[in-house]
Amino acid sequence: MSDKIKIEIHIALIHYPVYNKVGEVITSSVTTLDIHDISRIARTYAVSSFCVVTPLKTQRQLVGRLIEHWMTGYGAEYNPTRKEALLVTRVMNSLTETVLDLTEKYGKRPTIVATCAKKFPTSVGFQDLREEIRSGGPILLVFGTGWGLEKSILKEADYVLDPVEGVGEYNHLPVRAAIAIILDRLIAR
Amino acid sequence: MSDKIKIEIHIALIHYPVYNKVGEVITSSVTTLDIHDISRIARTYAVSSFCVVTPLKTQRQLVGRLIEHWMTGYGAEYNPTRKEALLVTRVMNSLTETVLDLTEKYGKRPTIVATCAKKFPTSVGFQDLREEIRSGGPILLVFGTGWGLEKSILKEADYVLDPVEGVGEYNHLPVRAAIAIILDRLIAR
Repeated sequence: MSDKIKIEIHIALIHYPVYNKVGEVITSSVTTLDIHDISRIARTYAVSSFCVVTPLKTQRQLVGRLIEHWMTGYGAEYNPTRKEALLVTRVMNSLTETVLDLTEKYGKRPTIVATCAKKFPTSVGFQDLREEIRSGGPILLVFGTGWGLEKSILKEADYVLDPVEGVGEYNHLPVRAAIAIILDRLIAR
Repeated sequence: MSDKIKIEIHIALIHYPVYNKVGEVITSSVTTLDIHDISRIARTYAVSSFCVVTPLKTQRQLVGRLIEHWMTGYGAEYNPTRKEALLVTRVMNSLTETVLDLTEKYGKRPTIVATCAKKFPTSVGFQDLREEIRSGGPILLVFGTGWGLEKSILKEADYVLDPVEGVGEYNHLPVRAAIAIILDRLIAR
């Protein structure tokens, strides 16, 4: 990892509470491909940790087994770049637990930045957040699976980040792609 | 789609000829998730077409069936945003066929831009390509699956685009993530 820029960014991928397509609050299933893709993306941008957040014990165990396979099992030999990516990947029970863990690590609460496909009057722009990141940190970027983060998370966050806008009205990016674009906008030189 | 910027960008996702992890030239398998993710990303950035390129007839049929399911089958009703994404998705036999098809459509050959995780002395930067795109087009961005595009494609392309660099030495982004970041850098305002 380069130490040219000292950035302390953490990512949380939330599986509860999120919405389903009809607006109900649900616990979404962990997608193993998300774990691999987002781990690689996080590693590319030197993210400090990628937390997979789900209250379901069996799902946390699934992620734990996946990480173990690629870290120490046959997978570590078969695909070393996947192993390296998973070095920053962790499993958490809730967003609250994630925030407490980071607060303990740094001795102060991280700045919580929720992401959303919609824009709010209070949304923060990419350039402003880029500057905030460089002025200190740590920052916890929070992403929702399913049809997005439940509104209590948006309310409790310190900021909601502007949505990724492409060209035109279509804004249904996979969360994997949104994370890649957002990290590139916030971190890449 | 917005018509604020008239951009004619096409994407080709190449399954042959690409390298495997030991450097052999192979035909990689189509990943259905690539189709969905890249279609959504392409639609977000108003890409004119996303061509899935494979010489294997059974794989082309698989992609054709997948598109049909989501365009006209039960899927179209179940998930309309997926349907909308697939509007720009097509299947092609080879890169040559893709280039000929676009040449026929526009009455001139598209500018072919290959992508690669390595930098070459002749690589073109993102800012330069952004300007080229705005000055005309059409552009065909070529992405490799597996361990990347076989060198003949890099040689024959008009340009090879600079690699996506994050922070540090790790550069093993999934092709899905690379496409998202590259389109954002080239097209987003």
